[in-house]
Amino acid sequence: MSQLFLSPGVPDPACRLRVVAPQTPPGRVAMWLGALLDTLPTPALTIDRTTAHRNAERMRERCRALGVRLRPHVKTHKTLEGGLLATGGTRRGIAVSTLAEARFFADGGFDDILLAYPVPTARLEECAGLARRLDAFHVLLDRPEALASLRQRPLGHGKRWLVWLKLDCGNGRAGVRPTDPAALELAQAIANDAPEEVTLVGVYAHCGNTYGCSGADTIQAIARTTTNAVLSFVAAHPIPEMSQLTELHPGNYIFYDLQQTQLGSCQPQDVAIRVLTRVIGHYAHRGQLLVDCGWAALSLHGAGAGQGPQGCAAIDGHPELRLVGLTQEHGLLEHAGGQMDFGRFPVGSVLALIPYHACATAAMHPVYYVHEEGKVVALWHPVRGW
Amino acid sequence: MSQLFLSPGVPDPACRLRVVAPQTPPGRVAMWLGALLDTLPTPALTIDRTTAHRNAERMRERCRALGVRLRPHVKTHKTLEGGLLATGGTRRGIAVSTLAEARFFADGGFDDILLAYPVPTARLEECAGLARRLDAFHVLLDRPEALASLRQRPLGHGKRWLVWLKLDCGNGRAGVRPTDPAALELAQAIANDAPEEVTLVGVYAHCGNTYGCSGADTIQAIARTTTNAVLSFVAAHPIPEMSQLTELHPGNYIFYDLQQTQLGSCQPQDVAIRVLTRVIGHYAHRGQLLVDCGWAALSLHGAGAGQGPQGCAAIDGHPELRLVGLTQEHGLLEHAGGQMDFGRFPVGSVLALIPYHACATAAMHPVYYVHEEGKVVALWHPVRGW
Repeated sequence: MSQLFLSPGVPDPACRLRVVAPQTPPGRVAMWLGALLDTLPTPALTIDRTTAHRNAERMRERCRALGVRLRPHVKTHKTLEGGLLATGGTRRGIAVSTLAEARFFADGGFDDILLAYPVPTARLEECAGLARRLDAFHVLLDRPEALASLRQRPLGHGKRWLVWLKLDCGNGRAGVRPTDPAALELAQAIANDAPEEVTLVGVYAHCGNTYGCSGADTIQAIARTTTNAVLSFVAAHPIPEMSQLTELHPGNYIFYDLQQTQLGSCQPQDVAIRVLTRVIGHYAHRGQLLVDCGWAALSLHGAGAGQGPQGCAAIDGHPELRLVGLTQEHGLLEHAGGQMDFGRFPVGSVLALIPYHACATAAMHPVYYVHEEGKVVALWHPVRGW
Repeated sequence: MSQLFLSPGVPDPACRLRVVAPQTPPGRVAMWLGALLDTLPTPALTIDRTTAHRNAERMRERCRALGVRLRPHVKTHKTLEGGLLATGGTRRGIAVSTLAEARFFADGGFDDILLAYPVPTARLEECAGLARRLDAFHVLLDRPEALASLRQRPLGHGKRWLVWLKLDCGNGRAGVRPTDPAALELAQAIANDAPEEVTLVGVYAHCGNTYGCSGADTIQAIARTTTNAVLSFVAAHPIPEMSQLTELHPGNYIFYDLQQTQLGSCQPQDVAIRVLTRVIGHYAHRGQLLVDCGWAALSLHGAGAGQGPQGCAAIDGHPELRLVGLTQEHGLLEHAGGQMDFGRFPVGSVLALIPYHACATAAMHPVYYVHEEGKVVALWHPVRGW
């Protein structure tokens, strides 16, 4: 069976974490269950449950319609709750980017886990431990040396290393190019050299280069190119394990973000993530509001390309405002063109920031406040570390 | 007594954290005590103990020479160990940026703690709790309304709110301008309106605008301007509590970073922080090394001003290499001008990245590996959240 990682949510197949335990002692935040959103201590990362559920269901429908399996990537949210939502409650078939995530989700009852990262041969014993305790723990590689490392550490107990060949179909990060003769040699070596120790599961590609795009058409073109490159490679080489495109591994789509909206992957109403922040000062002589959200709660993602802080977030419901300053714990807001109406934003009032990159913003928060009808209905605790 | 926050390390007086417990179950990483640095799981944040101790001692000497008190800001490292080092073991007299930090350090036996952030009136009960349990918990404000909030919540038990007036001496973030008549009115109100409930400790300014500078001269000029603005304000207004500049509150100086080196605040050999990363792939057709450190372990700080990823870190000992790509968990290195010598960087070899902004990079890590003579001698666990 051949596999292709093709990402409507354009996730980055990575985020390595060392810590497997939830990062926030639940007792410290459990008091906020049932609280009104605007009473939360700020900055606070919030997730609209209705929107996240709709995003999850739509992706399942999309995959059903495409006739491919959905293997959700959990690296954006890094939570068991998000994994449950994305797998429709089955806890089976996810992609992770770090060993810490793999352990965390395995401890949480998940199985059929793909470590969607070049197999860390320096930590092979950890990989072997996961392969032994799980029904299916998949790794990927793009080097013969990595295959040799796996063969030097057979799993025994009737277990085999489940290996995907990582292809680089234009993303220019990890992977062997499908046009490179080494790709076929490596695929054949994985498939045939030690069938009792290693099994070729399929091939894997990532459309990370869509990050550089604008517009759904361009993204679809890249996705099509990637798909064709993989399928041509598969068709050209008679390795029975490779038949058709069978899986999609999106990750960002549960939350979406400003970047995905700009890329055309989603509509503004599909973005479930916000960072709530309070106005903590009025500075009339500069026409600026000071808010209690800095890069420590938002990240600096989106500030590139000369955009500065205003690229890092949009202010929900206030297109007239723009973020003009970000330090560790402070944000500065200005009116985009006219006069700041300070009366509309009293000190203590709460604004909701729509982050540019959900993966980056989520990584800054020890807890996510999941809400419905204006109240906190759940607390999600992400894993961290590597 | 008047206070001035003047920062040789140019810290940002902020980083708000909700979680007070260390973020990494010590058992998970304790196994690395005594380990050789190049055996650590990567990416790994490391601190050179000798350099950090020297930085701490130098700052104490500098303050002794200036005849001012050192109140170290802990927001860069957020660890009890770093606080002990910076206070010379006294655990007395620190600046924090968040209530979570304040609780964390109070729980760790620290006292005389300044919350160097506009007093969060929405969380006044938490502030009152700290003021009651500590010998000295200081807050700062720049609005009459904040003073009114404190007066509406007297501490009782013979305790008074210890308040600093936040001045904006050109930084353009929080603070009232010393030339604004409101500054004197507010200082007088803090000092005189309710002496049994509120005590004016002093005035506070921050030279964050030095971040925009290049060169020690420019930074010193801004520091001088800031100092003069504060002292002129103090001298012009006969409030006995304000006499002379008495404290410095640097924070970044324990670690320093690439940015501080470029700003001229330190020499390259003073930078104690590194992010260790392993080479995980060779891509000869692009002349690139793939490493296992992405923005999740480094942050994107330094990528601004069109610099791109190469602004985010320097590669220690390898000026010929530059960081040309950063995704969540991957970094791409190229030769700055010539041919990449892949033989020098075998897959599995470890490189040390010197981060652009220590505060931002430290915020991405649940544990810091402190080393001496190539071995891990301590594990520091930072607090997170708000």
